[in-house]
Amino acid sequence: MNMFDITTTPDDVVHARERIRDRIRLTPVMTSDDINELLGIEVFFKFEHLQETGSFKLRGATHAVSLLSDDCPGVATHSSGNHGAALARAARTRGFQCHVVMPDSAVFSKVDAVRRHGGQVHSCAPTQSAREAGLDRLTEQGYAPIPPYDDERIIAGQGSCALELMEQVPDLDALVAPIGGGGLISGLALAVQSAPRPPRVYGVEPAGADDTARSLKAGQRVSDHDPRTMADGLRALVGQRNLAIIERDVLEVFTVSEARILEAMHLIWTHLKQVVEPSGAVALAGVVNRPERFAGMRLGVVLSGGNLDVEGMLKNLESSS
Amino acid sequence: MNMFDITTTPDDVVHARERIRDRIRLTPVMTSDDINELLGIEVFFKFEHLQETGSFKLRGATHAVSLLSDDCPGVATHSSGNHGAALARAARTRGFQCHVVMPDSAVFSKVDAVRRHGGQVHSCAPTQSAREAGLDRLTEQGYAPIPPYDDERIIAGQGSCALELMEQVPDLDALVAPIGGGGLISGLALAVQSAPRPPRVYGVEPAGADDTARSLKAGQRVSDHDPRTMADGLRALVGQRNLAIIERDVLEVFTVSEARILEAMHLIWTHLKQVVEPSGAVALAGVVNRPERFAGMRLGVVLSGGNLDVEGMLKNLESSS
Repeated sequence: MNMFDITTTPDDVVHARERIRDRIRLTPVMTSDDINELLGIEVFFKFEHLQETGSFKLRGATHAVSLLSDDCPGVATHSSGNHGAALARAARTRGFQCHVVMPDSAVFSKVDAVRRHGGQVHSCAPTQSAREAGLDRLTEQGYAPIPPYDDERIIAGQGSCALELMEQVPDLDALVAPIGGGGLISGLALAVQSAPRPPRVYGVEPAGADDTARSLKAGQRVSDHDPRTMADGLRALVGQRNLAIIERDVLEVFTVSEARILEAMHLIWTHLKQVVEPSGAVALAGVVNRPERFAGMRLGVVLSGGNLDVEGMLKNLESSS
Repeated sequence: MNMFDITTTPDDVVHARERIRDRIRLTPVMTSDDINELLGIEVFFKFEHLQETGSFKLRGATHAVSLLSDDCPGVATHSSGNHGAALARAARTRGFQCHVVMPDSAVFSKVDAVRRHGGQVHSCAPTQSAREAGLDRLTEQGYAPIPPYDDERIIAGQGSCALELMEQVPDLDALVAPIGGGGLISGLALAVQSAPRPPRVYGVEPAGADDTARSLKAGQRVSDHDPRTMADGLRALVGQRNLAIIERDVLEVFTVSEARILEAMHLIWTHLKQVVEPSGAVALAGVVNRPERFAGMRLGVVLSGGNLDVEGMLKNLESSS
C-alpha cells in the first residue's frame, strides 16, 4: 500500500513521553481473576479512562500543544468529543484559546466536557467532510490546527500509553487497542518497537465502522464510510498516516458486533467496576470474540475512555427501583 | 439509651485486621479535583467496591469465618446480597458449606454472585422476620450462624476498613459511611479510636430506610420498618449492637433523598469513573446534601459496594444508540 510515507519513529514516541510525563496521569493497570478465568488469558487492563478528561486523548493533545510557540493565538480541531476535551484542557494550561468543531450527533456529555475545559464548540453536520471543512475555516482564521489523529505529534503522544504499560507489566506478549481514526493504535505500534522484545499489536473496530479493515483489504483508504455503532468515539474515518502505520506494524485488525461491545462493557462493569464508554470496551470485545487467538498470552488491553452519558444510564436505574 | 452492652473494643478491630490482612485486598483510595472543587472539601474515597466480591462485606465475613474450628459443618446467614457473596467466598476458602437466606426482592445479580461463590440460596419473603426465621431454621440444622451485622466478629472485621484508610490518608478530620444494618459504621466508629487524634464519624442512611435516625430519636430501636429505597444494601433494620455503638460513638446520622443518592452516583460515575451501587453512593450523598458541615475538611468517604444489575443499565445504552 504505502500511500503515505511514515516519518514518525519509535524514538519520537520516547521523546513525546518525556515532554508530557509531568502533565498527564500515569494511569493504573488492573487485572480480574474472573475475567482471566473466563477467557483463559492473563489480561492486564490499562485504565486510560482514568486519564484526566477521561480518555487517552490527553496524551497526544498535550504533546502537540507543548510544541507550539508562546505567541500562538489558539488551537482548533474537530472531534466527536474526547480529543476536543483533551485539547481544551491542554490549551488552557498554556493560556491558549481552543476551538472545537463537533458533529451535531456528538454525545451531549462530551460537548459539555469540551466547554467545561474552556473550549469553544462549533457544531457541524455529522460527516467527515463537514468536520474537515469546519476545521479549515478555523485554520484560515489563524488558529493552529491540531487534528485528532492524522498528525505526527498526536501519534507520538498517544504512543506514550504503551511505554507506560510495558514498564508496568514486563513481558507482554501482545497489546490490543481500539481503532477509530487510528491515533492510538498507530502510536502504540510504534512505541512497542523500542522494547527489546516487542509485543505484537492488534487492533479492533466495530463492524459498523470497519473502514480500517476495508481499507487494508482494498489496499487504499476507502472513501465510503457511514458509521453505525454505539461506539461514538470510533466513528471517524481512519487517517492516512495512521493507516500506513497500521498496515506496516499492526499484526491484525478484528471487527466486532455491537452485541460483543455490550458483552465487553458488561464484563468491565461487573468485574472491574469501571465505567467505560462503548469505545473503551471495544478492545476487550475483540478479545472476547476470539479468545483462542490470545490463549495463554500475557495480554495488554487498553480501556481507552470512560465518557458516557451517565444521566441516561441512571434514569434506567431510577425507573427500575 | 444503652439497651445493649458494648463489648467490642478498638483493640478487637486491630486484631481482626491482622487476622484478615492476607485474605482481603488493600483497597485503593482516590480523589477527584472536580468533586473537591464542587464541594469545597478534600474528599478521599475509599474504594470498597473494589474489594473482592464487590463490597466491604468480605472483611467481616472473612474475620468471622477465620474464628471457626476446622470441623465446622458449614455457615449460614441472611443477606440482601453482599454479605451473602462475601460469606460464601470466605467459607469456600476454608472448605465450608455456605447457606444464605435471601429476600425474594434481592437484586438478581446479587443472588447470582452468592451462587458463583459457591453459596446455596434459600429465598424468603422480603421482611426482617422472614429473614431471621430462615436463618433460625438453618442454625437448628447445625450450621454456624454468621449474622450480617449484629455480631461482634463482623463489626470488628468491617472496622479494618478505617484502619487501612487512616494509614493511606493521614490526618483525616472525619469519616462518612452508609448505614444499613450498621456493621460498617459501628466497626469504623470503634476503629478510629485507636488513632492518636481520631477522625469524627458520620453516618448516612436513605430517608426511605431511616430506622437508625428514628431509633436514635426514640431512644430505642424502632420496630416499624418498611424500607423504600433504591439502595437495596441498606434496607435491613439496624442491629442492636450496632445501634448501641452508633449512639455512643457516631457524631451524627444524616438522611438523604433518593434524588441525592442518584446525584452522588452521577458524580462518582462521571468524575471517578467507578461503578458503585446506590448503597455505595449514599455516604457521598450525605456530603453533597450538607457540604457546609464538612467545609475545609480532609474527609474520608467510603464507597461501600459496586454490585449493580449491570444488564439493566446497559439495556438503556443500547436503546439510546
